[in-house]
Amino acid sequence: MTFSEKFHLRIPGPTPIPSRVQQAMNQPIFGHRSPEATQLILECSQQLKPIFGTEQDPLILTSSGTSALEAAVINTLSPGDEALVIVTGAFGDRFAKIVERYGFTLHRLDIEWGKACRPEQLQAALQQHPKTKAVFVTYCETSTGVLNPIQELSQVVRTHSEALFIVDGVSCLGAVPCQMDDWGLDIVVTGSQKALMLPPGLAFIAVSERAWGEIEQNQTSSFYLDLLRYRDSLSQNTTPYTPAVSLLLGLKEALCMLEEEGLEQVFKRHELLMNMCRAGVQSLGLTLMASDQDSSPTVTSIYGGAEAWSSEDVRKHLKQLRVLVAGGQQHLKGQIFRIGHMGYCDSLDVLTALSALEIALIQAGASVSLGSGVKAAQEVYLNHV
Amino acid sequence: MTFSEKFHLRIPGPTPIPSRVQQAMNQPIFGHRSPEATQLILECSQQLKPIFGTEQDPLILTSSGTSALEAAVINTLSPGDEALVIVTGAFGDRFAKIVERYGFTLHRLDIEWGKACRPEQLQAALQQHPKTKAVFVTYCETSTGVLNPIQELSQVVRTHSEALFIVDGVSCLGAVPCQMDDWGLDIVVTGSQKALMLPPGLAFIAVSERAWGEIEQNQTSSFYLDLLRYRDSLSQNTTPYTPAVSLLLGLKEALCMLEEEGLEQVFKRHELLMNMCRAGVQSLGLTLMASDQDSSPTVTSIYGGAEAWSSEDVRKHLKQLRVLVAGGQQHLKGQIFRIGHMGYCDSLDVLTALSALEIALIQAGASVSLGSGVKAAQEVYLNHV
Repeated sequence: MTFSEKFHLRIPGPTPIPSRVQQAMNQPIFGHRSPEATQLILECSQQLKPIFGTEQDPLILTSSGTSALEAAVINTLSPGDEALVIVTGAFGDRFAKIVERYGFTLHRLDIEWGKACRPEQLQAALQQHPKTKAVFVTYCETSTGVLNPIQELSQVVRTHSEALFIVDGVSCLGAVPCQMDDWGLDIVVTGSQKALMLPPGLAFIAVSERAWGEIEQNQTSSFYLDLLRYRDSLSQNTTPYTPAVSLLLGLKEALCMLEEEGLEQVFKRHELLMNMCRAGVQSLGLTLMASDQDSSPTVTSIYGGAEAWSSEDVRKHLKQLRVLVAGGQQHLKGQIFRIGHMGYCDSLDVLTALSALEIALIQAGASVSLGSGVKAAQEVYLNHV
Repeated sequence: MTFSEKFHLRIPGPTPIPSRVQQAMNQPIFGHRSPEATQLILECSQQLKPIFGTEQDPLILTSSGTSALEAAVINTLSPGDEALVIVTGAFGDRFAKIVERYGFTLHRLDIEWGKACRPEQLQAALQQHPKTKAVFVTYCETSTGVLNPIQELSQVVRTHSEALFIVDGVSCLGAVPCQMDDWGLDIVVTGSQKALMLPPGLAFIAVSERAWGEIEQNQTSSFYLDLLRYRDSLSQNTTPYTPAVSLLLGLKEALCMLEEEGLEQVFKRHELLMNMCRAGVQSLGLTLMASDQDSSPTVTSIYGGAEAWSSEDVRKHLKQLRVLVAGGQQHLKGQIFRIGHMGYCDSLDVLTALSALEIALIQAGASVSLGSGVKAAQEVYLNHV
């Protein structure tokens, strides 16, 4: 096949863009201080609220998700403050690196990669570090496919400390439930290029009243990442700096799509996709990285076959079939591959990926029964509907 | 007219997107660590070089231009360092605010808004502040339509100090000559949404060897704006954080368009657009803010008619004709209006804007001779070709 645009993007972000969203982004560009822009920013912020589960107005940054993680750290912490970072993989590690780099006191709660943080582990860490000003956690750890139990962890923080609870929801918000206000989350961050079905370039941050209190006391020296400026601007339905207008047009459309499907249904769909993917992979005799309890509805991590076949070989053969999956990060490089199933993704996409995976496994030297992974996933589908 | 997409965007950015660029951005999204992405980043950085006039590899940030200004400040200055900021308008003022906010020592060289900085003014300021570590200047001051004489100013810095010379080229790079290496500029910054004909969301920074030396000594605590990380990543044709992939696709196409037209021709075109716009406006009896010597080829600032008619009224009537121009910023609010003529803009666009302006002036109560502005601009055109 020579036409290079026919491929299946099954990495955990960026994710495919729906045609409706693409078309929305094709509208002629307009001024970022125009009435059209202020209306758009107002609507986007309002429509983002249910994604976060908050009555607060989510802020819109033009940047990668990482800058929003940085904003969460530097707007809440002051020199001398202690931060407890739950590290369940590469993105928890990124939080820790940001904290360290700014010279805040870092306490790492390292969890074995592939496992979620248990409430009792967090409780012990908080007891060990009673002066913790803020706890940082990754909701979906993209590098391992683990979903941390945010609601339970938040309860531990609220019960055993006065610390802020700050959540990186980049690779799952919009695909899994988030009840920021009810669960007592203080800051939740996400990005455009995952479950929100947009190209990369926008990040979103919601902040609790309690966290705003800390931020007002704190006054970061950062200019671009000063959340108070974003709040001031948003109160006038604008942004402090020129936003990525075309992506905002796409965002509005993507949020409408999520509304039309209904968030509860969106969450159910992602759970089904996860269950189909996991059943298919398991029935092929492959080893999942995350347990059923810890697995994320947005991305599935799968171990390579040790001596028998390598995950990189499988990825290579999948690529020849034009199915693109991700490899492992940091020490998991060459050890695992990861299938993304979030955003603009449906059951047939998972079946397609599994059917290609079976071919790729055979080509990589694994011994699998063709069709058996697809069958297991089909059964999950039929039992679900 | 009811179809809302037919309008003429004549603000100084964001600017209209060419159809070719729009189409390029419609390609299916792909992974930011894929071979396609690394090839794209490599090509974009290489094709950006002539825009900056440098052999250095321009860095690509996913953000508004402001974050690139901030990156230029915080990567070069250390606590206790002195900065001299040439303030010719709102964007010079932004540089000053960033410097101040981080607690670096700020020396402001305030120039009357509407005028460019003269070499002798800079020389005197440098003599007054001999410990200046870096001089910051705005190439085109968007708020006034003034183009600062960067080459001459750079020569003053090089002759009379050891300071770095750091240039905000956001609202003109790609429309006016920039010979960063030959002129001895240390850092030049620009954004996607002006002369580069893209939506907002990308910023670009080129750094001289000399400035890299300072940056290596300096080590900012910023994570997202750490230019050393961007350099490390770019050496592997990638970016440290997920870039705005769709905008990169557009960038590549926009840079090809500039190459095809030829940069010299692009610069001549912008000069012609400026001359047409200025001649038209002047022949209508309006007062230009910038002198012929100081005027920018990308944006023209025009005073309101004092008691006779207001610039805001003219803007309102232009808007009814679906021609969108900008108002004044800060103390110039209500005093001036600004016509952008950069990027995807040609002679007929200027004639269109002038023909609408004549109607709007009449409607606002000014006394002008219909067609006379258009005629003056047509004459400039005919004398040019």
